[in-house]
Amino acid sequence: MKVSILTFEGFNELDSFIALGILNRLRSKGLQVHITGPSPKITSMNGVTIETTQALEFASESDAVLFGSGIYTREITKDLSILNRIKLNSNRQLIGAQCSGTLLMAKLGLINNLPACTDLTTKPWAIEAGVKIIDAPFYADGNLSTAGGCMSSQYLAAWIIAKLFNCEEAENAIYYVAPVGQKEEYVEMIMKVVKKFL
Amino acid sequence: MKVSILTFEGFNELDSFIALGILNRLRSKGLQVHITGPSPKITSMNGVTIETTQALEFASESDAVLFGSGIYTREITKDLSILNRIKLNSNRQLIGAQCSGTLLMAKLGLINNLPACTDLTTKPWAIEAGVKIIDAPFYADGNLSTAGGCMSSQYLAAWIIAKLFNCEEAENAIYYVAPVGQKEEYVEMIMKVVKKFL
Repeated sequence: MKVSILTFEGFNELDSFIALGILNRLRSKGLQVHITGPSPKITSMNGVTIETTQALEFASESDAVLFGSGIYTREITKDLSILNRIKLNSNRQLIGAQCSGTLLMAKLGLINNLPACTDLTTKPWAIEAGVKIIDAPFYADGNLSTAGGCMSSQYLAAWIIAKLFNCEEAENAIYYVAPVGQKEEYVEMIMKVVKKFL
Repeated sequence: MKVSILTFEGFNELDSFIALGILNRLRSKGLQVHITGPSPKITSMNGVTIETTQALEFASESDAVLFGSGIYTREITKDLSILNRIKLNSNRQLIGAQCSGTLLMAKLGLINNLPACTDLTTKPWAIEAGVKIIDAPFYADGNLSTAGGCMSSQYLAAWIIAKLFNCEEAENAIYYVAPVGQKEEYVEMIMKVVKKFL
Protein backbone atom coordinates (compact mmCIF):
# COMPACT_ATOMS: atom_id res chain seq x y z
CA MET A 1 0.00 0.00 0.00
CA LYS A 2 1.21 3.47 -0.88
CA VAL A 3 0.68 6.88 0.67
CA SER A 4 1.54 10.19 -0.98
CA ILE A 5 2.10 13.24 1.20
CA LEU A 6 1.73 16.07 -1.31
CA THR A 7 4.39 18.58 -0.39
CA PHE A 8 4.96 21.90 -2.16
CA GLU A 9 7.42 24.79 -2.13
CA GLY A 10 7.17 26.66 1.19
CA PHE A 11 5.70 23.62 2.94
CA ASN A 12 5.02 23.40 6.66
CA GLU A 13 7.44 20.83 8.12
CA LEU A 14 5.09 19.77 10.91
CA ASP A 15 2.28 18.88 8.55
CA SER A 16 4.30 16.74 6.15
CA PHE A 17 6.75 15.12 8.58
CA ILE A 18 4.44 14.26 11.49
CA ALA A 19 2.22 12.33 9.08
CA LEU A 20 5.30 10.73 7.48
CA GLY A 21 6.80 9.68 10.81
CA ILE A 22 3.60 8.16 12.19
CA LEU A 23 2.56 6.44 8.95
CA ASN A 24 6.01 4.89 8.57
CA ARG A 25 5.40 2.90 11.75
CA LEU A 26 3.49 0.61 9.34
CA ARG A 27 6.40 0.28 6.92
CA SER A 28 7.18 -3.25 8.11
CA LYS A 29 3.57 -4.14 7.31
CA GLY A 30 3.91 -3.01 3.71
CA LEU A 31 3.03 0.68 3.85
CA GLN A 32 5.20 2.85 1.58
CA VAL A 33 5.02 6.54 2.46
CA HIS A 34 6.29 9.13 -0.01
CA ILE A 35 6.96 12.84 0.06
CA THR A 36 5.41 13.56 -3.31
CA GLY A 37 6.15 16.92 -4.86
CA PRO A 38 6.18 18.98 -8.05
CA SER A 39 9.98 19.00 -8.36
CA PRO A 40 12.93 16.87 -7.19
CA LYS A 41 13.84 19.40 -4.49
CA ILE A 42 11.60 21.64 -2.42
CA THR A 43 12.33 24.10 0.35
CA SER A 44 10.16 24.42 3.46
CA MET A 45 8.64 27.60 4.89
CA ASN A 46 11.56 27.71 7.32
CA GLY A 47 14.29 27.16 4.74
CA VAL A 48 14.96 23.43 4.91
CA THR A 49 15.54 21.88 1.47
CA ILE A 50 14.47 18.28 0.99
CA GLU A 51 14.40 15.82 -1.87
CA THR A 52 10.95 14.54 -2.77
CA THR A 53 10.79 10.75 -3.01
CA GLN A 54 8.16 10.65 -5.77
CA ALA A 55 6.82 13.00 -8.44
CA LEU A 56 3.34 14.46 -8.17
CA GLU A 57 1.90 11.92 -10.62
CA PHE A 58 2.57 9.16 -8.08
CA ALA A 59 -0.46 10.39 -6.12
CA SER A 60 -2.77 8.86 -8.75
CA GLU A 61 -1.55 5.37 -7.92
CA SER A 62 -1.49 5.84 -4.14
CA ASP A 63 -4.01 4.23 -1.79
CA ALA A 64 -4.04 7.35 0.35
CA VAL A 65 -3.14 10.95 -0.44
CA LEU A 66 -2.54 13.77 2.03
CA PHE A 67 -2.41 17.43 0.99
CA GLY A 68 0.20 19.09 3.22
CA SER A 69 0.07 22.80 3.82
CA GLY A 70 2.46 25.69 3.30
CA ILE A 71 2.85 29.39 2.79
CA TYR A 72 2.25 29.40 -0.97
CA THR A 73 -0.86 27.22 -1.16
CA ARG A 74 -3.10 30.04 -2.42
CA GLU A 75 -0.73 30.58 -5.37
CA ILE A 76 -0.68 26.84 -6.05
CA THR A 77 -4.49 26.75 -6.28
CA LYS A 78 -4.09 29.02 -9.34
CA ASP A 79 -1.17 27.11 -10.91
CA LEU A 80 -2.56 24.78 -13.55
CA SER A 81 0.91 23.37 -14.30
CA ILE A 82 0.75 21.82 -10.82
CA LEU A 83 -3.00 21.16 -10.44
CA ASN A 84 -3.26 19.33 -13.76
CA ARG A 85 -0.70 16.78 -12.56
CA ILE A 86 -2.86 15.72 -9.58
CA LYS A 87 -5.47 13.18 -10.66
CA LEU A 88 -7.34 11.65 -7.74
CA ASN A 89 -10.42 9.52 -7.31
CA SER A 90 -12.18 9.52 -3.96
CA ASN A 91 -14.06 6.33 -4.81
CA ARG A 92 -10.86 4.28 -4.61
CA GLN A 93 -8.46 6.54 -2.66
CA LEU A 94 -8.42 7.97 0.86
CA ILE A 95 -7.86 11.71 0.52
CA GLY A 96 -7.06 14.08 3.38
CA ALA A 97 -5.85 17.65 3.77
CA GLN A 98 -3.99 19.53 6.44
CA CYS A 99 -4.56 23.27 7.09
CA SER A 100 -4.13 25.20 3.82
CA GLY A 101 -4.15 21.87 1.97
CA THR A 102 -7.93 22.13 2.36
CA LEU A 103 -7.83 24.90 -0.30
CA LEU A 104 -6.28 22.46 -2.77
CA MET A 105 -8.80 19.73 -1.99
CA ALA A 106 -11.59 22.25 -2.54
CA LYS A 107 -10.06 23.51 -5.78
CA LEU A 108 -9.86 19.93 -7.09
CA GLY A 109 -13.57 19.39 -6.33
CA LEU A 110 -12.91 16.94 -3.51
CA ILE A 111 -14.79 18.67 -0.69
CA ASN A 112 -18.11 19.70 -2.26
CA ASN A 113 -20.59 20.33 0.53
CA LEU A 114 -18.77 18.51 3.33
CA PRO A 115 -17.87 20.44 6.47
CA ALA A 116 -14.09 20.94 6.50
CA CYS A 117 -11.26 21.88 8.87
CA THR A 118 -8.36 24.24 8.31
CA ASP A 119 -6.05 26.52 10.30
CA LEU A 120 -7.04 29.98 11.54
CA THR A 121 -4.96 31.79 8.88
CA THR A 122 -6.48 29.86 5.98
CA LYS A 123 -10.04 30.00 7.33
CA PRO A 124 -11.13 33.27 5.61
CA TRP A 125 -9.64 32.14 2.27
CA ALA A 126 -11.37 28.76 2.53
CA ILE A 127 -14.70 30.44 3.29
CA GLU A 128 -14.14 32.76 0.32
CA ALA A 129 -13.57 29.63 -1.80
CA GLY A 130 -17.00 28.38 -0.74
CA VAL A 131 -15.88 25.80 1.84
CA LYS A 132 -18.02 25.23 4.94
CA ILE A 133 -15.32 25.56 7.64
CA ILE A 134 -15.99 24.15 11.11
CA ASP A 135 -14.15 24.98 14.35
CA ALA A 136 -12.83 21.46 14.85
CA PRO A 137 -9.44 19.70 14.64
CA PHE A 138 -10.57 16.91 12.33
CA TYR A 139 -13.49 15.86 10.19
CA ALA A 140 -13.95 12.84 7.94
CA ASP A 141 -16.73 11.42 5.83
CA GLY A 142 -16.18 8.21 3.90
CA ASN A 143 -12.86 8.47 2.08
CA LEU A 144 -12.39 12.21 2.64
CA SER A 145 -10.94 14.06 5.63
CA THR A 146 -9.54 17.44 6.65
CA ALA A 147 -7.59 18.64 9.69
CA GLY A 148 -6.84 22.05 11.17
CA GLY A 149 -3.81 23.11 13.23
CA CYS A 150 -0.37 21.61 12.58
CA MET A 151 -0.53 19.01 15.36
CA SER A 152 -3.81 17.69 13.94
CA SER A 153 -1.62 15.86 11.45
CA GLN A 154 -1.61 13.18 14.17
CA TYR A 155 -5.35 12.69 13.56
CA LEU A 156 -4.92 12.46 9.79
CA ALA A 157 -2.18 9.84 10.15
CA ALA A 158 -4.20 7.79 12.67
CA TRP A 159 -7.28 7.98 10.42
CA ILE A 160 -5.34 6.72 7.39
CA ILE A 161 -3.88 3.79 9.34
CA ALA A 162 -7.28 2.91 10.82
CA LYS A 163 -8.87 2.98 7.35
CA LEU A 164 -6.08 1.12 5.50
CA PHE A 165 -5.44 -1.37 8.33
CA ASN A 166 -7.54 -1.14 11.50
CA CYS A 167 -7.98 0.79 14.74
CA GLU A 168 -5.54 -1.36 16.67
CA GLU A 169 -2.71 -0.59 14.22
CA ALA A 170 -3.49 3.13 14.50
CA GLU A 171 -3.35 2.87 18.29
CA ASN A 172 -0.04 0.97 18.11
CA ALA A 173 1.51 3.63 15.87
CA ILE A 174 0.39 6.47 18.15
CA TYR A 175 1.51 4.51 21.22
CA TYR A 176 5.00 4.22 19.78
CA VAL A 177 5.42 7.94 19.09
CA ALA A 178 3.62 9.13 22.25
CA PRO A 179 5.57 10.65 25.16
CA VAL A 180 7.02 8.10 27.59
CA GLY A 181 4.99 7.87 30.81
CA GLN A 182 1.90 9.30 29.07
CA LYS A 183 1.36 6.74 26.32
CA GLU A 184 -2.08 5.41 27.31
CA GLU A 185 -3.61 8.87 27.82
CA TYR A 186 -1.99 10.15 24.62
CA VAL A 187 -3.41 7.30 22.52
CA GLU A 188 -6.81 7.92 24.06
CA MET A 189 -6.62 11.66 23.28
CA ILE A 190 -5.83 11.02 19.60
CA MET A 191 -8.17 8.09 19.01
CA LYS A 192 -11.12 9.80 20.74
CA VAL A 193 -11.13 12.37 17.94
CA VAL A 194 -10.57 9.90 15.09
CA LYS A 195 -12.93 7.11 16.19
CA LYS A 196 -15.99 9.32 15.80
CA PHE A 197 -15.40 9.09 12.04
CA LEU A 198 -14.69 5.38 11.67
CA MET B 1 19.61 33.89 19.11
CA LYS B 2 20.52 30.60 17.48
CA VAL B 3 19.34 27.03 17.96
CA SER B 4 21.04 23.95 16.54
CA ILE B 5 19.05 20.78 16.08
CA LEU B 6 21.78 18.15 15.79
CA THR B 7 20.60 15.77 13.09
CA PHE B 8 22.49 12.69 11.95
CA GLU B 9 22.25 10.00 9.28
CA GLY B 10 19.19 7.82 9.92
CA PHE B 11 17.50 10.58 11.90
CA ASN B 12 13.93 10.42 13.21
CA GLU B 13 11.89 13.02 11.29
CA LEU B 14 9.48 13.65 14.15
CA ASP B 15 12.22 14.55 16.62
CA SER B 16 14.07 17.03 14.42
CA PHE B 17 11.14 18.60 12.56
CA ILE B 18 8.61 19.02 15.38
CA ALA B 19 11.22 20.99 17.33
CA LEU B 20 12.15 22.94 14.19
CA GLY B 21 8.55 23.81 13.36
CA ILE B 22 7.62 24.96 16.86
CA LEU B 23 10.86 26.88 17.50
CA ASN B 24 10.52 28.71 14.18
CA ARG B 25 7.35 30.36 15.49
CA LEU B 26 9.88 32.70 17.16
CA ARG B 27 11.74 33.47 13.93
CA SER B 28 10.17 36.93 13.68
CA LYS B 29 11.52 37.62 17.18
CA GLY B 30 15.07 36.84 16.16
CA LEU B 31 15.36 33.09 16.71
CA GLN B 32 17.38 31.29 14.01
CA VAL B 33 16.81 27.54 13.99
CA HIS B 34 19.22 25.27 12.12
CA ILE B 35 19.32 21.63 11.15
CA THR B 36 22.93 21.10 12.06
CA GLY B 37 24.59 17.96 10.79
CA PRO B 38 27.87 16.18 10.05
CA SER B 39 27.53 16.48 6.26
CA PRO B 40 25.71 18.72 3.73
CA LYS B 41 23.08 16.04 3.06
CA ILE B 42 21.61 13.46 5.41
CA THR B 43 18.94 10.83 4.93
CA SER B 44 16.28 10.08 7.55
CA MET B 45 15.37 6.67 8.99
CA ASN B 46 12.49 6.56 6.51
CA GLY B 47 14.53 7.55 3.46
CA VAL B 48 13.97 11.29 3.15
CA THR B 49 17.13 13.17 2.16
CA ILE B 50 17.51 16.72 3.45
CA GLU B 51 20.16 19.41 3.25
CA THR B 52 21.54 20.49 6.62
CA THR B 53 21.52 24.27 7.06
CA GLN B 54 24.68 24.41 9.20
CA ALA B 55 27.70 22.22 9.87
CA LEU B 56 28.13 20.47 13.21
CA GLU B 57 30.59 23.10 14.45
CA PHE B 58 27.78 25.67 14.45
CA ALA B 59 26.47 24.06 17.64
CA SER B 60 29.33 25.64 19.61
CA GLU B 61 28.06 29.13 18.86
CA SER B 62 24.36 28.32 19.39
CA ASP B 63 22.36 29.53 22.39
CA ALA B 64 20.50 26.24 22.50
CA VAL B 65 21.38 22.80 21.16
CA LEU B 66 19.07 19.82 20.73
CA PHE B 67 20.32 16.30 20.10
CA GLY B 68 17.83 14.65 17.76
CA SER B 69 17.53 10.90 17.65
CA GLY B 70 17.85 8.26 14.98
CA ILE B 71 18.55 4.65 14.17
CA TYR B 72 22.35 4.93 14.15
CA THR B 73 22.90 6.87 17.37
CA ARG B 74 24.74 4.02 19.12
CA GLU B 75 27.27 3.91 16.26
CA ILE B 76 27.65 7.70 16.43
CA THR B 77 28.52 7.54 20.14
CA LYS B 78 31.65 5.59 19.05
CA ASP B 79 32.54 7.83 16.09
CA LEU B 80 35.19 10.29 17.23
CA SER B 81 35.24 12.00 13.82
CA ILE B 82 31.74 13.21 14.69
CA LEU B 83 31.93 13.55 18.49
CA ASN B 84 35.11 15.65 18.38
CA ARG B 85 33.31 18.27 16.27
CA ILE B 86 30.67 18.89 18.97
CA LYS B 87 31.99 21.33 21.58
CA LEU B 88 29.33 22.44 24.02
CA ASN B 89 29.27 24.29 27.31
CA SER B 90 26.28 23.87 29.59
CA ASN B 91 27.18 26.98 31.58
CA ARG B 92 26.30 29.22 28.66
CA GLN B 93 24.15 26.99 26.42
CA LEU B 94 20.79 25.25 26.83
CA ILE B 95 21.29 21.61 25.89
CA GLY B 96 18.54 19.06 25.37
CA ALA B 97 18.20 15.58 23.93
CA GLN B 98 15.42 13.60 22.38
CA CYS B 99 15.15 9.79 22.71
CA SER B 100 18.42 8.20 21.58
CA GLY B 101 20.01 11.67 21.59
CA THR B 102 20.29 11.08 25.34
CA LEU B 103 23.07 8.58 24.57
CA LEU B 104 25.06 11.34 22.84
CA MET B 105 24.51 13.79 25.68
CA ALA B 106 25.73 11.13 28.12
CA LYS B 107 28.75 10.28 25.98
CA LEU B 108 29.75 13.95 25.89
CA GLY B 109 29.57 14.15 29.69
CA LEU B 110 26.51 16.40 29.72
CA ILE B 111 24.19 14.29 31.89
CA ASN B 112 26.36 13.15 34.79
CA ASN B 113 24.11 12.08 37.63
CA LEU B 114 20.91 13.79 36.46
CA PRO B 115 17.81 11.68 35.92
CA ALA B 116 17.17 11.46 32.18
CA CYS B 117 14.44 10.53 29.71
CA THR B 118 14.66 8.44 26.56
CA ASP B 119 12.48 6.18 24.42
CA LEU B 120 11.69 2.56 25.30
CA THR B 121 14.07 1.14 22.65
CA THR B 122 17.04 3.20 23.83
CA LYS B 123 16.34 2.67 27.54
CA PRO B 124 18.45 -0.51 28.04
CA TRP B 125 21.41 1.03 26.13
CA ALA B 126 21.19 4.23 28.17
CA ILE B 127 21.14 2.26 31.43
CA GLU B 128 24.14 0.26 30.17
CA ALA B 129 25.90 3.60 29.54
CA GLY B 130 25.34 4.49 33.20
CA VAL B 131 22.43 6.91 32.75
CA LYS B 132 19.70 7.03 35.41
CA ILE B 133 16.61 6.67 33.17
CA ILE B 134 13.21 7.72 34.52
CA ASP B 135 9.78 6.75 33.18
CA ALA B 136 8.80 10.31 32.27
CA PRO B 137 8.30 12.31 29.07
CA PHE B 138 10.56 15.22 30.04
CA TYR B 139 13.09 16.22 32.65
CA ALA B 140 15.15 19.39 32.99
CA ASP B 141 17.59 20.76 35.50
CA GLY B 142 19.14 24.17 34.93
CA ASN B 143 20.39 24.31 31.35
CA LEU B 144 20.03 20.58 30.65
CA SER B 145 17.01 18.59 29.57
CA THR B 146 16.00 15.25 28.05
CA ALA B 147 12.76 13.94 26.53
CA GLY B 148 11.45 10.47 25.71
CA GLY B 149 8.97 9.47 23.01
CA CYS B 150 8.90 11.26 19.63
CA MET B 151 6.01 13.59 20.48
CA SER B 152 7.87 14.78 23.60
CA SER B 153 9.81 16.98 21.19
CA GLN B 154 6.94 19.40 21.87
CA TYR B 155 8.14 19.66 25.48
CA LEU B 156 11.75 20.26 24.47
CA ALA B 157 10.74 23.03 22.06
CA ALA B 158 8.46 24.71 24.63
CA TRP B 159 11.20 24.49 27.28
CA ILE B 160 13.77 26.15 24.99
CA ILE B 161 11.38 29.00 24.12
CA ALA B 162 10.45 29.49 27.79
CA LYS B 163 14.13 29.60 28.78
CA LEU B 164 15.34 31.82 25.89
CA PHE B 165 12.24 34.09 25.94
CA ASN B 166 9.52 33.44 28.50
CA CYS B 167 6.56 31.20 29.29
CA GLU B 168 4.09 33.36 27.41
CA GLU B 169 6.06 33.01 24.16
CA ALA B 170 6.20 29.24 24.65
CA GLU B 171 2.43 29.17 25.16
CA ASN B 172 1.90 31.31 22.04
CA ALA B 173 4.03 28.99 19.92
CA ILE B 174 2.19 25.88 21.13
CA TYR B 175 -1.17 27.65 20.72
CA TYR B 176 -0.36 28.32 17.07
CA VAL B 177 0.53 24.71 16.22
CA ALA B 178 -2.19 23.11 18.39
CA PRO B 179 -5.27 21.49 16.83
CA VAL B 180 -8.10 23.91 16.02
CA GLY B 181 -10.92 23.72 18.57
CA GLN B 182 -8.58 22.22 21.20
CA LYS B 183 -5.98 24.96 21.49
CA GLU B 184 -6.46 25.95 25.16
CA GLU B 185 -6.44 22.36 26.43
CA TYR B 186 -3.48 21.48 24.21
CA VAL B 187 -1.39 24.40 25.51
CA GLU B 188 -2.28 23.39 29.07
CA MET B 189 -1.28 19.76 28.41
CA ILE B 190 2.16 20.76 27.09
CA MET B 191 2.92 23.56 29.56
CA LYS B 192 1.86 21.49 32.59
CA VAL B 193 4.80 19.17 31.91
CA VAL B 194 7.32 21.92 31.11
CA LYS B 195 6.45 24.43 33.86
CA LYS B 196 7.52 22.04 36.61
CA PHE B 197 11.09 22.63 35.43
CA LEU B 198 11.06 26.42 34.97
